[in-house]
Amino acid sequence: MEQPTIALLTDFGLRDAYVGVMKAVMRRICSGAALIDLTHAIEPQAVREAALTLLSAYAYFPAGTIFLVVVDPGVGTTRRPVAVAAGDYQFVAPDNGVLSYVLELLPDVRSVELTQDTYRLHPTSQTFHGRDIFAPAAAHLAAGVSLPELGPTLHDLMRLPAPRLDIVDGCLLGEIVHIDHFGNVVTSIGTLTWTAEDVLQLQPQFGPSRDVRTIDAAHAVVACGDQEVAGIFRAYGQAARGQMLTLVGSSGFLELAINQGNGAAALNIAIGDPVELRV
Amino acid sequence: MEQPTIALLTDFGLRDAYVGVMKAVMRRICSGAALIDLTHAIEPQAVREAALTLLSAYAYFPAGTIFLVVVDPGVGTTRRPVAVAAGDYQFVAPDNGVLSYVLELLPDVRSVELTQDTYRLHPTSQTFHGRDIFAPAAAHLAAGVSLPELGPTLHDLMRLPAPRLDIVDGCLLGEIVHIDHFGNVVTSIGTLTWTAEDVLQLQPQFGPSRDVRTIDAAHAVVACGDQEVAGIFRAYGQAARGQMLTLVGSSGFLELAINQGNGAAALNIAIGDPVELRV
Amino acid sequence: MEQPTIALLTDFGLRDAYVGVMKAVMRRICSGAALIDLTHAIEPQAVREAALTLLSAYAYFPAGTIFLVVVDPGVGTTRRPVAVAAGDYQFVAPDNGVLSYVLELLPDVRSVELTQDTYRLHPTSQTFHGRDIFAPAAAHLAAGVSLPELGPTLHDLMRLPAPRLDIVDGCLLGEIVHIDHFGNVVTSIGTLTWTAEDVLQLQPQFGPSRDVRTIDAAHAVVACGDQEVAGIFRAYGQAARGQMLTLVGSSGFLELAINQGNGAAALNIAIGDPVELRV
Repeated sequence: MEQPTIALLTDFGLRDAYVGVMKAVMRRICSGAALIDLTHAIEPQAVREAALTLLSAYAYFPAGTIFLVVVDPGVGTTRRPVAVAAGDYQFVAPDNGVLSYVLELLPDVRSVELTQDTYRLHPTSQTFHGRDIFAPAAAHLAAGVSLPELGPTLHDLMRLPAPRLDIVDGCLLGEIVHIDHFGNVVTSIGTLTWTAEDVLQLQPQFGPSRDVRTIDAAHAVVACGDQEVAGIFRAYGQAARGQMLTLVGSSGFLELAINQGNGAAALNIAIGDPVELRV
Repeated sequence: MEQPTIALLTDFGLRDAYVGVMKAVMRRICSGAALIDLTHAIEPQAVREAALTLLSAYAYFPAGTIFLVVVDPGVGTTRRPVAVAAGDYQFVAPDNGVLSYVLELLPDVRSVELTQDTYRLHPTSQTFHGRDIFAPAAAHLAAGVSLPELGPTLHDLMRLPAPRLDIVDGCLLGEIVHIDHFGNVVTSIGTLTWTAEDVLQLQPQFGPSRDVRTIDAAHAVVACGDQEVAGIFRAYGQAARGQMLTLVGSSGFLELAINQGNGAAALNIAIGDPVELRV
Repeated sequence: MEQPTIALLTDFGLRDAYVGVMKAVMRRICSGAALIDLTHAIEPQAVREAALTLLSAYAYFPAGTIFLVVVDPGVGTTRRPVAVAAGDYQFVAPDNGVLSYVLELLPDVRSVELTQDTYRLHPTSQTFHGRDIFAPAAAHLAAGVSLPELGPTLHDLMRLPAPRLDIVDGCLLGEIVHIDHFGNVVTSIGTLTWTAEDVLQLQPQFGPSRDVRTIDAAHAVVACGDQEVAGIFRAYGQAARGQMLTLVGSSGFLELAINQGNGAAALNIAIGDPVELRV
């Protein structure tokens, strides 16, 4: 059998041994699995940030990958631990909406609640389900246990609201959803793809409207904080060093950045702040 | 042969290539070993923090795991590099007490000093024994070299004092031993296990007294800094969002936390500060 | 076939999923490759820092290792993506000088430009060549694709200037090139090796002069910032706890440090500041 892949996405940070302990637990159950860290630096309890990170990354993984997603402010409460199969992938996570966006795009969604005691660690704590429930479930899936063996079917997974993307008076209104390591400011305005020189196609994947729109990149204006930036570029290096620009980021969302600088620091903005694209 | 597991625990951080270089060295010696990072974010030279992290994590690893523990303020001095077999595990570390707590719990402890030149890198620096002595020893153990081949037997490993756990006038007195990524404040008061609804059993693993005590969780009071918190909870989510609570952490030690907040920031405390559990 | 090793070195940080996505891409192309992180904490766009980190680390990796080096301020511009074979290793990187120092030391350098469309991800972004061009190339090399298959031969790789190492009036003049996780201050003065008690041999690997010099370690004086430190030590622990010292670091370069303290914080210096070794 091909070695299965397990991808890890948490808000556990790397200061403690929490991530290492989850890997140890998985290695005992399925020693052949390859473990790939997506990130463990999701802001503590930031379920939507994790959902968007998963969305930007999942499609690059091989078919058969199991995603272990543990951002879990409700650990030990009534929120349910779940496993979900969808498309070519499987996901293990708390049922708090963290899988919302990725499941929006994948076919054949089937979910179960992780109730089967055999596939938990014992004693099972009320404070670290990543170790005691989620990691074991992911590893058992990797070892060949089937989804239905993990627990009874669920039909009502929790869903997060879509990131903002409204059209008002011909303007696209979005919000800042992420600030990356470089200070690049990622917005909810997308998905954008280049269809010709200076022509962008917007095809929203979430929210009420899925209408496709065509955008003249050279004449578009992006307003964010107290800045207005004209023109959407293809590469950071098209702007002068230190100059603010907008472009289509690597996941297809509109981004504000400074070439070889920190855009977020210069803009003085925060997650959730509004962004406007005038086309 | 089953692929061996090597677990890494250091204070090297992830800014430099130190950890990657140790992994490279091990891959040359035992290419089949699976490498799992416990953490590299131990505070520089914090031997006791590393000892406690190892204690909280080791039992989740498969039998046969080799722990490579490099928190080594005395590198290049007379402190001895050692390898230790105990229970189902092996450990490679400087002899500075970093293995103290885990060896307290494991049977059949056998130690050797890492003197055998064949199993070192040459030239051997006086500043990076992680690369030149410890990583090679761990990888050779993973490749099947036996403990006695690495050097002569030792009978007097250095031991750290136990974290504080005293009983004075019926109160349990401990100290803060760790602040985690979420700001949860871990104390030396443990090990605690739930034996019934609202009933905790305290069974100290270290220090002079190993007497088992029974604690009425609902009526216990924890005092720390200028705060007093009544009742020991089972899960973070039992407190209101933003409320201070105490609970039994995932390693069995008493913890102070804020549900979905940063307990350490609110308490204004530091490692080593006293904590009192009134039962 | 032996499992190939791919070593990763980037400025991507660990906050986002960028590194995880590159690993996912490589796992789809060459599932058997072992992935070792050198570091992802190079300062954003710090090409020379990455070049020096690679220099300090590469020789510890097994023959056949492929180094995936992505510090790429020019992504999406005319700078070329390249693959290079040299000595027992292969490298994939932007052609911005990041391979300069390591190629200075290795024989049989052969380079190609990564133009072959078959070995890229499609669509190919202009903002994340790590994912779309470099990681696929590294993984295809690991899977057995030969260098010439990736694109046409190049003869003019970009080179960085050597770190400073001048001799003026019998003094060695260098600069600070790195501050590590512990606050140890690494200089460009090297490579130094101990040839006898208190005798160091300096053998420059870069720059105009490659003359070998002999240095009396006990009587040497190092001047940096407003400090002068007499004597070059072998180990941090030879100085008193909290005392400033100089020694030969684990990569053979002169270093300033405080035993069990943070040398950089005490010295108030920055990358590029001058250092003088009076012999």
